[in-house]
Amino acid sequence: MARSTRPVKLTVEMIKEARKRLLNSIYYSPCPKSQTLSDIAGCHVYCKLENLQMTGSFKERGALSRLKTLTAEEKERGVIAASAGNHAQGIAYHAARLGIACTIVMPEYTPLIKVVNTRRSGANVIVQGNNYDAACEYALQLQKENGCVFIHPFNDPEVMAGQGTIGLEILEQVTDVDAVIVPVGGGGLIAGVATAIKETRPEVKVIGVQSMCVPSMKASLEENELVCVRPEGRTIADGIAVQVPGDLTFPIIRQYVDEIVTADEDEIANAILLLLEIEKAVVEGAGAIPLAALLNRQLGLSGKKVVLLLTGGNIDVNMLSVIIHRGLVRDGRLVRLRVLLRDKPGTLAELSSLLAEEHANVLEITHHRTFTSAALGEAEVDLDLETEGAAHVQRIMARLEQAGYPSQRVE
Amino acid sequence: MARSTRPVKLTVEMIKEARKRLLNSIYYSPCPKSQTLSDIAGCHVYCKLENLQMTGSFKERGALSRLKTLTAEEKERGVIAASAGNHAQGIAYHAARLGIACTIVMPEYTPLIKVVNTRRSGANVIVQGNNYDAACEYALQLQKENGCVFIHPFNDPEVMAGQGTIGLEILEQVTDVDAVIVPVGGGGLIAGVATAIKETRPEVKVIGVQSMCVPSMKASLEENELVCVRPEGRTIADGIAVQVPGDLTFPIIRQYVDEIVTADEDEIANAILLLLEIEKAVVEGAGAIPLAALLNRQLGLSGKKVVLLLTGGNIDVNMLSVIIHRGLVRDGRLVRLRVLLRDKPGTLAELSSLLAEEHANVLEITHHRTFTSAALGEAEVDLDLETEGAAHVQRIMARLEQAGYPSQRVE
Repeated sequence: MARSTRPVKLTVEMIKEARKRLLNSIYYSPCPKSQTLSDIAGCHVYCKLENLQMTGSFKERGALSRLKTLTAEEKERGVIAASAGNHAQGIAYHAARLGIACTIVMPEYTPLIKVVNTRRSGANVIVQGNNYDAACEYALQLQKENGCVFIHPFNDPEVMAGQGTIGLEILEQVTDVDAVIVPVGGGGLIAGVATAIKETRPEVKVIGVQSMCVPSMKASLEENELVCVRPEGRTIADGIAVQVPGDLTFPIIRQYVDEIVTADEDEIANAILLLLEIEKAVVEGAGAIPLAALLNRQLGLSGKKVVLLLTGGNIDVNMLSVIIHRGLVRDGRLVRLRVLLRDKPGTLAELSSLLAEEHANVLEITHHRTFTSAALGEAEVDLDLETEGAAHVQRIMARLEQAGYPSQRVE
Repeated sequence: MARSTRPVKLTVEMIKEARKRLLNSIYYSPCPKSQTLSDIAGCHVYCKLENLQMTGSFKERGALSRLKTLTAEEKERGVIAASAGNHAQGIAYHAARLGIACTIVMPEYTPLIKVVNTRRSGANVIVQGNNYDAACEYALQLQKENGCVFIHPFNDPEVMAGQGTIGLEILEQVTDVDAVIVPVGGGGLIAGVATAIKETRPEVKVIGVQSMCVPSMKASLEENELVCVRPEGRTIADGIAVQVPGDLTFPIIRQYVDEIVTADEDEIANAILLLLEIEKAVVEGAGAIPLAALLNRQLGLSGKKVVLLLTGGNIDVNMLSVIIHRGLVRDGRLVRLRVLLRDKPGTLAELSSLLAEEHANVLEITHHRTFTSAALGEAEVDLDLETEGAAHVQRIMARLEQAGYPSQRVE
């Protein structure tokens, strides 16, 4: 399914104008170097911490840029947007601050916490439609009825100009930067950032990253026309799960972006965990994807100065907890060992002492007596252990084997 | 048990000198305003993000300040320190950078991940002693044998001067700041910060916070002499669990600190979760304690400009996962409801539809048939649900009751 694209004017001057509109209302987010990530990746890694913005993501830059270009008469009419996430919060927060009436249509699957937060900003929140497209359609219908101004999350030059201000900041913060890695959904962010960077220092590489589940911009560039990609399953990078790129962003990206790569779910989850443990930063899936790409793709950046644009931190804490657990299991720092025990007093005590001597921390013990292949008089026991990692697990298993308790690792 | 204190010279000039020594080696950490925390606390809240330092805490300021005052001959001899945490990582990292041999004695309970990280920095790590005091004693013994220089984590003027550089930065970053809230363990950090602030702008309040489990500095100030406080249980603010304050830090704190308050474990855990969700910041227990105090104590700061010194982010991710879960349970966003069901096909399906209609997400269902007070032919079922919060739980329980499934909340 191909769609036509439209040329749009976006220049670094427009981005500089947008920057003036944002002055004192948007946080000039820090961009510290990470020595540990640099060591891991083999290049000089800097993290642009857009997760520290007031609403937890860069989206408020574009939102405010657009809101500030409304005419007095348009402000009177109010604005409307459709979004399940960061765009909603960005618009709602700044519209309230500027005294502009604001309606947000959120699809029905939107996490309750995001509905509550958006409502708390003072927006009129309508939960409608069982996917983003349906919510968007409803918003456009309301817009026609009420005459308010629809603000698109990416396909709007003033929104792109707002996002592009990040590019200007990066050029100031990291002198002689060689490359910037940017998450890509509809393309508003990377269109702005690439314009800011390429029209100032064309030799700096701009690399985009998409979720492997919905690589719509990458596919569109390959086809040289807009392509609709149906998502393959859900992605934790839900903030960039866009099926059709913007027809206004696409030509800019084709002109300025050097390369678009993808990252898979495990790579993204691992990047979230690394940022949590190493950078002490809470970063959502879409925001962690630049690190996922840097660590898992051949980008030719060895020894270079690389900025990762960590776009946002609005991840559900439940999800964070799941990612922590799976990460620890993958690293062998959480492990489940299954052991066959004689079902009589004393054996568990002996096993426990062995584990204590090996400095394994026992988190949970589960006995299986009914649903098990163990003989009568034996019990299958699952030990959930906290360990130092894979090598430590090997030592523990060897020790148990030696003591007459052969164990199996349960995945 | 009283101990004598010694007067020590610490001036804002010494702190300015320390700042020169740290230039380009220590990150000038950001101090953004938090609108959401401001709304919650009823004052203007700024967060000094020392969790973003290279080794994840402010401790490297004092460590590097001290390392840089070593004579050439002392550098040759190398340094030794005892620490289970941030001081160890700060010393190890900067000693390696400066090419100074470094030994760290860590107590046996030290989390393996911290041992591994400290070793990775290039330090000679010795795990010895079943508590901090024993590790410290062993380090002092080694120091006598080997002639290397012992670096104390807080009871050292050059260490205090290094920590005090945070005070200078805060005065620059938050114009007209009214108060700074600082975690207190041995007192090195607050002695430095208070000196920097009070000798520049004496009208700015400096408030210390200790864990309710080990309030040794507070007790010492009340007794007007050093008091040893045995910890009451373990605290998640392990970074400030110090039994006896420094004899050098104490007189400075008595002179300059306005007030010391305490926070309990639940308050600290809640502060960690708020910082994670709102500020997108990973902060350890000791680092989150200023927010715990601001939200739970009467500090007379309503409407004021208040800086929270978030000292570090080195929290075990397993602990983080536990804190997330408990926090969700407390807010009613995770709830366990116990329902009595007829033990026959169809009832569970009916119950599930009711829950779906109320938009409650079912995480886990557990049937109890053996260990239960339910009659034969009935089963007790525990439903673990993800909800919007307490009010939502009330609605769900009312709906279940109406449908003939009275439920009880399991705490």
